[in-house]
Amino acid sequence: MSFRDDGAAAVDWVASYLERVGELPVLAQVEPGELRSRLPQAPPETPEPFSAVLRDLDEVLLPAVTHWQSPRFFAYFPSTGSEPGILAELLLAGLNQVGILWRTSPALQELEEVTLDWLAQLLGLPPGLHGHLEDGASTGTMAALAAAREAKPGARFVVCSEHAHSSVEKGCRILGLESRPTPVDDRFRLRPDALDLNGACAVVATIGTTSTSSVDPVAAIADACEPEGVWLHVDAAYAGSAAICPELRDAFAGWERADSIVVNPHKWLSTPMGCSAFWTRRPQDLRAAFSLVPEYLRVSEEVASLSEYSPALGRQFRALKLWTVLRCYGREGLQRRIREAIALAALFEGWVREEPGWEVTAPRPFSLVCFRRDGSDDDNEALLERVNATGELFISHTRLNGRYTLRLAVGSARTTEADVRRAWDVLRREAG
Amino acid sequence: MSFRDDGAAAVDWVASYLERVGELPVLAQVEPGELRSRLPQAPPETPEPFSAVLRDLDEVLLPAVTHWQSPRFFAYFPSTGSEPGILAELLLAGLNQVGILWRTSPALQELEEVTLDWLAQLLGLPPGLHGHLEDGASTGTMAALAAAREAKPGARFVVCSEHAHSSVEKGCRILGLESRPTPVDDRFRLRPDALDLNGACAVVATIGTTSTSSVDPVAAIADACEPEGVWLHVDAAYAGSAAICPELRDAFAGWERADSIVVNPHKWLSTPMGCSAFWTRRPQDLRAAFSLVPEYLRVSEEVASLSEYSPALGRQFRALKLWTVLRCYGREGLQRRIREAIALAALFEGWVREEPGWEVTAPRPFSLVCFRRDGSDDDNEALLERVNATGELFISHTRLNGRYTLRLAVGSARTTEADVRRAWDVLRREAG
Repeated sequence: MSFRDDGAAAVDWVASYLERVGELPVLAQVEPGELRSRLPQAPPETPEPFSAVLRDLDEVLLPAVTHWQSPRFFAYFPSTGSEPGILAELLLAGLNQVGILWRTSPALQELEEVTLDWLAQLLGLPPGLHGHLEDGASTGTMAALAAAREAKPGARFVVCSEHAHSSVEKGCRILGLESRPTPVDDRFRLRPDALDLNGACAVVATIGTTSTSSVDPVAAIADACEPEGVWLHVDAAYAGSAAICPELRDAFAGWERADSIVVNPHKWLSTPMGCSAFWTRRPQDLRAAFSLVPEYLRVSEEVASLSEYSPALGRQFRALKLWTVLRCYGREGLQRRIREAIALAALFEGWVREEPGWEVTAPRPFSLVCFRRDGSDDDNEALLERVNATGELFISHTRLNGRYTLRLAVGSARTTEADVRRAWDVLRREAG
Repeated sequence: MSFRDDGAAAVDWVASYLERVGELPVLAQVEPGELRSRLPQAPPETPEPFSAVLRDLDEVLLPAVTHWQSPRFFAYFPSTGSEPGILAELLLAGLNQVGILWRTSPALQELEEVTLDWLAQLLGLPPGLHGHLEDGASTGTMAALAAAREAKPGARFVVCSEHAHSSVEKGCRILGLESRPTPVDDRFRLRPDALDLNGACAVVATIGTTSTSSVDPVAAIADACEPEGVWLHVDAAYAGSAAICPELRDAFAGWERADSIVVNPHKWLSTPMGCSAFWTRRPQDLRAAFSLVPEYLRVSEEVASLSEYSPALGRQFRALKLWTVLRCYGREGLQRRIREAIALAALFEGWVREEPGWEVTAPRPFSLVCFRRDGSDDDNEALLERVNATGELFISHTRLNGRYTLRLAVGSARTTEADVRRAWDVLRREAG
């Protein structure tokens, strides 16, 4: 078979997958080890046709897939690709660029810079930021903290709210820093009056925390950081994409004063996995933390490589997929997707509020609804497991003030009012 | 346009790109900023068709692309995708799995485990290793050193040869460790007699160094590490794929005693970028370094997620592309590609040796030839720049014992004897 024939079959597979993904059980209905036991224990000696891969994808792998692209995937935060993004992934795999130095792919480096400028404009960020892409927010946050450590020698603490993402603590552990979780107010926001910046090299403020999507008061935190010379990193991995809508910008007040910002287009901006935007207004501190040019990478042109601002050396052509998405949707198309997700979440929130025996457990600034059924934590956990076991939807949970809470996050462009309605029907049915 | 139509156009674009990549200038013949100046300064307001992306890819981006897929890309180490790998990238973008917990994609986690077992078998590694994939060797090496630091508190040094990859020093810098480069012998191999393990938590041994592809004596290094309880990490990012050929296994003697190993299938095993294999026989030390399960990720099933062994939280479905490549080539197909590359490098090496005025400057264990023209370092550097400016081939350089040296590495499945012959013709022509 030729690449063109196999390629046509692969495109057809993806097209029909996306057409039927809404009919598949959202959470994989398999036991641990079940897939492993169905796969050969040894690799093949001789070549198999690509069609065999497609066959096994359907017959063996698919039952073990949890469908992040399902219109009723409501767990964690959405990670929804889009058709143009998926095809861009094919193009960039064909080009297989490796960004090490500018010369190893001028297209990769300059498109990444331009695309990050475009995205900064779309999100209302100030001009002049230095932008690049990482694989995920964990890497970007760790890189920011490394730069902060470099910029303030001897300061070993990183301050964040107790609701900051686990990647902050993980980054600190890698870097040998200590994270200091700070109490939140009754809306799960970091309390600036409780900030103790003694010995701190950085504060991580979150716009859209993982548990509740709460928004730390970034401007007040910036007021505290600036006189102390403490690096302010803003983690807007999920919610940052919402800044594309002017009517939602209030939640982002002050982020323009951050030293670094992370936003994941692979979460809520229709870009396939592995696309996390990072901006800084202190690129020299990043470069001080990461630049290292061995002899075999010295070249005549005087252009700093993006790898000098980043933990990894070789980078993929991630910009091509983000650029493709920005072009194929435009500002208007991307705004519409954010607004639709928020409208659906608001609808669901309204139903929960009106229903006796249920309560909304946190404010909803974006597209995440936190809620619970009257009863014990165990009752709610059992409800979650029952609901997910139906395969009709997939939701996740958290704990707020010690109480088990259900989370329903909307984000897929495929999600309609009927999907949210069905989720609510299943929840009420399983609650008995 | 529909996804099927756009998809057909994208497949056609990649197919025709791969057909004509040998005719394009290998090194992008553009000046810094040239692409940037041809791109709009602001993002589009309204949607554009996918066909506009394809058009600009040809007309605007392609001149700024350095063609890693060209049969005459001989710089650094090869990173060559393959047709099945490229199509797998399309499939995995369509599925857009996010590995956070086992339940968020049992297929991703179990296929990654099985595929790493398969690859370990192909490379002759011992059974029972814990394997997972990272985006690149920089991440894997950093993760290994983090585990080593965790396993030996207070030990702050990492020992490696002065020819170890720059990612070792970068990883140390991130972790707050100190790298101690150790002298090499006359074949650019770490000298075990010069090893000072006092205060060391880890030694990084390299099989296939970046400058010359030299092979550190891993067995002797393991002898030194084991009594001291020092973590032995083997960086075989480039050369590790060659272990699939039994006749090349001598170079790998002792790597089965390593605490951790990195091999990049995206370098020399036909897998698109972002696929670096990591194995350890001490998974609990990795888990101690990286496991962190916040409330919102607690689940009922008792399966450790691969993210507990890794710096990142969310992982892509990288295993699907490696699994596809292993299946579509099989052991025989992959061996053939390695052997062909080595045979072509041996041919080129022979021509250099026989030609008056040229010399081979390092032993050639794999597919990299180090060589230079008689004359000054400046002469050789100017020769490299002239050769690369022709667009007919792309080579890189290093310095050995202070002397400027040219590097020609073979690895693409598209490279034929005619391509290597042409490289040699251009080199002699430009040398005057």
